[in-house]
Amino acid sequence: LRDLLMMVPGPTIIPPEVREALAQPSLYHRGEAFAELLAECTRGLQGLLGTQQPVAILATSGTGAVEAMIVNTLSPGDRVLAVASGKFGRRMGEIAAVYGAAVTWSEVVPGEAANPVAVAEKLDADQYRALLFVYNETSTGVKQPAAGLAQVAVARGAMALSDCVSAIAGMPVAMDTWGLAGVAAGSQKALMLPPGLAVVALSEAALRAAGNARMPRFYLDIRKALASLGKGQTPFTPNVNAVLALRAALRLIYAEGLPEFQLRHRRLARACRAAALAAGLELLASSEECASDVVTAIRSPLGVDSGVLVRAVRERHSIVISGGQDSLKGAIFRIGHLGAAQLSDLCRTWEAIAAELRLLGYHCDPQACIAAAERAYAGKG
Amino acid sequence: LRDLLMMVPGPTIIPPEVREALAQPSLYHRGEAFAELLAECTRGLQGLLGTQQPVAILATSGTGAVEAMIVNTLSPGDRVLAVASGKFGRRMGEIAAVYGAAVTWSEVVPGEAANPVAVAEKLDADQYRALLFVYNETSTGVKQPAAGLAQVAVARGAMALSDCVSAIAGMPVAMDTWGLAGVAAGSQKALMLPPGLAVVALSEAALRAAGNARMPRFYLDIRKALASLGKGQTPFTPNVNAVLALRAALRLIYAEGLPEFQLRHRRLARACRAAALAAGLELLASSEECASDVVTAIRSPLGVDSGVLVRAVRERHSIVISGGQDSLKGAIFRIGHLGAAQLSDLCRTWEAIAAELRLLGYHCDPQACIAAAERAYAGKG
Repeated sequence: LRDLLMMVPGPTIIPPEVREALAQPSLYHRGEAFAELLAECTRGLQGLLGTQQPVAILATSGTGAVEAMIVNTLSPGDRVLAVASGKFGRRMGEIAAVYGAAVTWSEVVPGEAANPVAVAEKLDADQYRALLFVYNETSTGVKQPAAGLAQVAVARGAMALSDCVSAIAGMPVAMDTWGLAGVAAGSQKALMLPPGLAVVALSEAALRAAGNARMPRFYLDIRKALASLGKGQTPFTPNVNAVLALRAALRLIYAEGLPEFQLRHRRLARACRAAALAAGLELLASSEECASDVVTAIRSPLGVDSGVLVRAVRERHSIVISGGQDSLKGAIFRIGHLGAAQLSDLCRTWEAIAAELRLLGYHCDPQACIAAAERAYAGKG
Repeated sequence: LRDLLMMVPGPTIIPPEVREALAQPSLYHRGEAFAELLAECTRGLQGLLGTQQPVAILATSGTGAVEAMIVNTLSPGDRVLAVASGKFGRRMGEIAAVYGAAVTWSEVVPGEAANPVAVAEKLDADQYRALLFVYNETSTGVKQPAAGLAQVAVARGAMALSDCVSAIAGMPVAMDTWGLAGVAAGSQKALMLPPGLAVVALSEAALRAAGNARMPRFYLDIRKALASLGKGQTPFTPNVNAVLALRAALRLIYAEGLPEFQLRHRRLARACRAAALAAGLELLASSEECASDVVTAIRSPLGVDSGVLVRAVRERHSIVISGGQDSLKGAIFRIGHLGAAQLSDLCRTWEAIAAELRLLGYHCDPQACIAAAERAYAGKG
């Protein structure tokens, strides 16, 4: 198997320190060493999520964590408003509907951010129990106004439940300050781990709601996870090696410094957008302000199927980028620049993209893309 | 962190080949290489489970897989009979109840195996949709008569759903021949992987039932997993490294030969029981026939809290064994002998146990235990 450069919005590049932790000998999961490990991870995750609340660690993918957040706080029949920002915003509403919630959609044009004022109007039209939204919509590369959305929900007594799967670590999350009732996140994004570990935090109020929430859950029961957390354990056999890897990743993040880590993400995102524009391409994000810090979605030039481009970049350059999903299939390609990704990785990626675009009949200059990326990263123009 | 010898019924010793696979660079999870990987794993798992049915791979612990098996095949209000063989048998019924099934219990004395005739009588008393049972009850070290239980369920039109979490690989499973409607298994037992990967297989009839089953599920929806499997993918981002490790483990098992691998488990179990008896201790399993091949539960001698023994063995010998759970807490200790465990590991474990028992005031001869284990392993006496 070749070592591919992962420039997708997850799974991402796994640093050697994290890979080593994954391969460590087993650690007893009911002992003191595991309890200390869990405590260190909890503190690190609280810092990333901006919360004093306990953080439950689950052995699932990010979707499992989002489902856990929903089924632990809601009951069948509850009215919820879901921000349909793209594939993942829609998924939140779909999960709630599967468990019997009455879901109303707040539609968002792909590439645009939700407007908190419009969402507030929707919320005013009915008695909603919760507002569901994705902070960073991975399918469109658009950052949703999490603070503003949380605020309009809180003001109307609705719980703000946010999918932060691709936002965690790479983008600032201030759960307590923003008033988020719940956040869910996954490991295979800026946390630089393989998939398979996920985290959920609920506010005090959401935890009280969990006591009365009637959506069924057993494996995803956060009350069990939090009760075990108090004893330094997990309710079901934890993925010990993944938790060891999580600690290694958190240590890398805090060694770089969380503000510096997130600044690097913003600079990489700026560099990626600059490269795209230098290639004469159009961004899917409708504004600089709403463009994601961790993934950039770019419209494929006329006549070029983005799936063909993505495959060529993977097969001939060993670099993995993403195409579009669902209605955006073929129309966009997406570059993840998160976690351990560096400017040099991004430049190598753009060199490959520009070369392949030329072979597909779209003329652009690889060197101009790279120069633009470097200038933007450095903060000049 | 010290390298502990894991002699618990999971997590188990992880062989170097599997650890290396865990630390491999990432592999693109929507490409051909992953599809081939998944196909090889599926074939290997089908061999372990004795089925021609597709096997869904989930990123959960074993409990998640058991829950998936239940919620994909049943509807709220369904009558189910659960064999309460111990902590894990009970858990199956608890999961079904959480999702609204009407659960009747078939009680089993801890240490005994369920009697298929008695279960058949229970089944005759009502219209049951399913029989839930654990094949290897990890909490008591007792093998349940899976073939017999499946047979009485099939004869009455009830689905036989079996938790094979700790049985897979180490004990023969013949899903198709026995007529099991579903099996669920986990990675951290005889499969020699860390926790976090689980598998579920459903029979043709159970898959048809899944189309009408009304227990809610999204992340655990087997239909999604099987639809993706057809494309060589998983519905949610898979734990790629765990799947690579699964392939490495399956290759180790088939290189040893599955019959030989399982014979080694039976010999180790016989050796463990012989050592216990040589120490003058009593087994929890009521007969040789129902004693588990993968975990042995031993009654703690009078006046010795098994929790104290377990801790001493861990802290002073770096060997991890288990105590009892729930009502058996303090009263039994359990030794896992599965996956990569060898006779030498078992002897080292008994030497430590015997030494610590003596310090706790119970007199037994470590050398006699080891000699008995060696004789039993070799098949003499």
